[in-house]
Amino acid sequence: MQVLRHVDNNMKGLISDLQTLIRQPSVSAKNEGLEECARLVAKIMRNSGIRSEILYLRKGIPPVVYGEVKSKQNPKKTLLFYNHYDVQPAEPFDLWKDKPFSGKIIGNKIFGRGSADDKGELITRIKAVESYLKTEGDVPCNVKFLVEGEEEIGSMHVEKYLKKFKKKFSCDGVIWEFGYVDAKNRPIISLGMKGLLYVELSVTESIRDAHSSLAVLIENPAWRLLEALKTLRDPNGKIIIKDWYKEADGFTKEELKLIQTEPFDEKEFKKEYGIKRFVANKTGIAARKALVGEPTCNIAGFVSGYTGPGAKTVLPSQALVKIDFRLVPKMDPLKQLARLKQHLRSNGFGDIKVNMIHGEAASKTNILDPFVSKVKKAANESFGKSIVSVSSAGTGPMYSFAKVLSAPCISIGSTYIFSRIHSPNEFARIDLLNKTTKCICRIMSKFN
Amino acid sequence: MQVLRHVDNNMKGLISDLQTLIRQPSVSAKNEGLEECARLVAKIMRNSGIRSEILYLRKGIPPVVYGEVKSKQNPKKTLLFYNHYDVQPAEPFDLWKDKPFSGKIIGNKIFGRGSADDKGELITRIKAVESYLKTEGDVPCNVKFLVEGEEEIGSMHVEKYLKKFKKKFSCDGVIWEFGYVDAKNRPIISLGMKGLLYVELSVTESIRDAHSSLAVLIENPAWRLLEALKTLRDPNGKIIIKDWYKEADGFTKEELKLIQTEPFDEKEFKKEYGIKRFVANKTGIAARKALVGEPTCNIAGFVSGYTGPGAKTVLPSQALVKIDFRLVPKMDPLKQLARLKQHLRSNGFGDIKVNMIHGEAASKTNILDPFVSKVKKAANESFGKSIVSVSSAGTGPMYSFAKVLSAPCISIGSTYIFSRIHSPNEFARIDLLNKTTKCICRIMSKFN
Repeated sequence: MQVLRHVDNNMKGLISDLQTLIRQPSVSAKNEGLEECARLVAKIMRNSGIRSEILYLRKGIPPVVYGEVKSKQNPKKTLLFYNHYDVQPAEPFDLWKDKPFSGKIIGNKIFGRGSADDKGELITRIKAVESYLKTEGDVPCNVKFLVEGEEEIGSMHVEKYLKKFKKKFSCDGVIWEFGYVDAKNRPIISLGMKGLLYVELSVTESIRDAHSSLAVLIENPAWRLLEALKTLRDPNGKIIIKDWYKEADGFTKEELKLIQTEPFDEKEFKKEYGIKRFVANKTGIAARKALVGEPTCNIAGFVSGYTGPGAKTVLPSQALVKIDFRLVPKMDPLKQLARLKQHLRSNGFGDIKVNMIHGEAASKTNILDPFVSKVKKAANESFGKSIVSVSSAGTGPMYSFAKVLSAPCISIGSTYIFSRIHSPNEFARIDLLNKTTKCICRIMSKFN
Repeated sequence: MQVLRHVDNNMKGLISDLQTLIRQPSVSAKNEGLEECARLVAKIMRNSGIRSEILYLRKGIPPVVYGEVKSKQNPKKTLLFYNHYDVQPAEPFDLWKDKPFSGKIIGNKIFGRGSADDKGELITRIKAVESYLKTEGDVPCNVKFLVEGEEEIGSMHVEKYLKKFKKKFSCDGVIWEFGYVDAKNRPIISLGMKGLLYVELSVTESIRDAHSSLAVLIENPAWRLLEALKTLRDPNGKIIIKDWYKEADGFTKEELKLIQTEPFDEKEFKKEYGIKRFVANKTGIAARKALVGEPTCNIAGFVSGYTGPGAKTVLPSQALVKIDFRLVPKMDPLKQLARLKQHLRSNGFGDIKVNMIHGEAASKTNILDPFVSKVKKAANESFGKSIVSVSSAGTGPMYSFAKVLSAPCISIGSTYIFSRIHSPNEFARIDLLNKTTKCICRIMSKFN
């Protein structure tokens, strides 16, 4: 195919554009360089032949870059690429071998914050479209881009953008913002994302810290919080709040089959984190099922009293815990929040304050959707092999896309699984950028 | 009595010497000004007619100031004053109305870090001796001083000083470093101190923090620590470690009687801390008994994961809790530590690391010791009334003194109970400094 040859010949341009993007810091957590990066994305799109536009919700909210190419040969089918131009903060700076926004190339790797997550993914999609336009003067289907600037801080406004510009974004399938390639160079095609309910529980027992000798009389808020927490979850990780799993979606026959064949390297995983066993001694299928479809109740943070070195005999006045509950499809974050509150009340912990920080529903694309087999074919042709995963263990705004656009969402991309995203010395692999660009071309060609 | 008139006439000198002491910062936590303050104390003693000496254990350890006056009339009885010249850090500075080491006088109050704790107490004792020497040329009993420089950081070396200079410090009774006067101007004569076992328990589950989506597989150390903690203590504050209370001393008939008559203003206490009820709904006698004689298991600090604002979906690799167990007489800190470790092991928590930070046994002077009634009489004569308390709820090195010197220890002093010790705007009340100096004179005169 001529278009695939063009991808090979165009790698210099891809790398140079990716470097340009990396060199424009765009840290959403610090509101740094977002507008500039959005304009840069729009410009790179235009240079690739994509009509681009910068969309605003309202002042103060990072814009979304919209991109569009209409297909002459197949104007009835539309593929939407979802990406983000914002990046994680680069800290800790001193752990970077080069400057965090260098875009430096060493061998097969391009280094820099955002090189993989998500500027690398974005560039493969832009360049795939460019290669079609340069070689055939057309694309095999309509393509659209939604490139947001708040993914790393929770995509708070992406659903509002989707709703406000619903017509613009209407499509028949979404290629998700991320996509991993495992250690055996197999792309992982992921069909879902878990939901999230992130809450803070806090207890205040007195108006000031007291000398700890008064612990005989004054309640300790950390003990109080502990008493409450131990009613939420058993030692095996099962959440024991009433009706917590009531709506939780199980697995279809097809999904169960997929989970069984899906490779998951327990040994490698355990080595990576230095652990000897999994929660509840899960192994094999049980571990895989948990990853793709089990709700969790995780303590993301706990703080009370004195936490410095040595001894301080203090009776703290307050204690706070941050909990993230991962949800699976059909679980409604607000309904789960109500259950948590009801649970605390009916267990005598009505004094514990519950503050919801974030809520997001899970989403899962039907494994039997024809879009899945098209992507799978494209991946196999590009990488020689691929893995379909029922769901990522992580969370993203997939539910919003599926709901507003009524379109299946699939994650596939170029990010090597150990490419240190969110960490110092993040990198993108040039060989995978190349293969993934071709894979995107193939997905477009099959999307009819 | 001529000596008491001298105390009145000598108040200017007392105040001026106290100001001099306050103006010399001596923060043991920062190793700031300790040597200088020790020399100042020795000098003030000398000026008052007390033979003084600076004792060293070894380089790097703050010295102890020794003071001595031999009695001609009664050389067989020796009273030891135990005090400390070090102070708590003055932070937060911005909450002080004047500079923290100003010694500024406003009406009846002298302000400054250390004004009450413990430089004010020390000066009353020096000045009591001075008044005897100036008026009678003799003291009614031998007097000795032990003024240490590490009280605010745990008196780590005072037992070693006591042992090394055991002969020097030999005595028949110890007047303890602190002493409170309650809101009704009644001095509280306290006969004991609780012990302390301060430990850190920590759990490490993996070699690095992980994305919280992995909580389905990787154990969360905060949950693990919680599971362990909940086996230590019931919601009423009772410690449920095997044999924890085995040696714990109960109350004698006399002590029980004392506890019943000892006033304790529940309402005021609750208002001070903004609380509505006490642990386990204790009231009346039960609350008082708890204060003077109940062991505790207090969470002084708990930290794991992300504790900043907003949401971070992290699965922490470590969790740490700081616990201070208050002990009562007969409980041995090391034995209790062994019980804690055994408890964790036999409950399946052998993986939890236990690090002892500090251990100190409790001590209690026998209520029937004649020293008690002498101090009580002196207090009544000086203040018109007084309260004897079986024990302070706090901890100090009283056990070391009682053990090494085989002498009863009694706490009585000039510190108004709400004089903000350890807090900004600490002050000493001039009227109480005067009364307490007289009270110390009376204690000396009765100590034969």
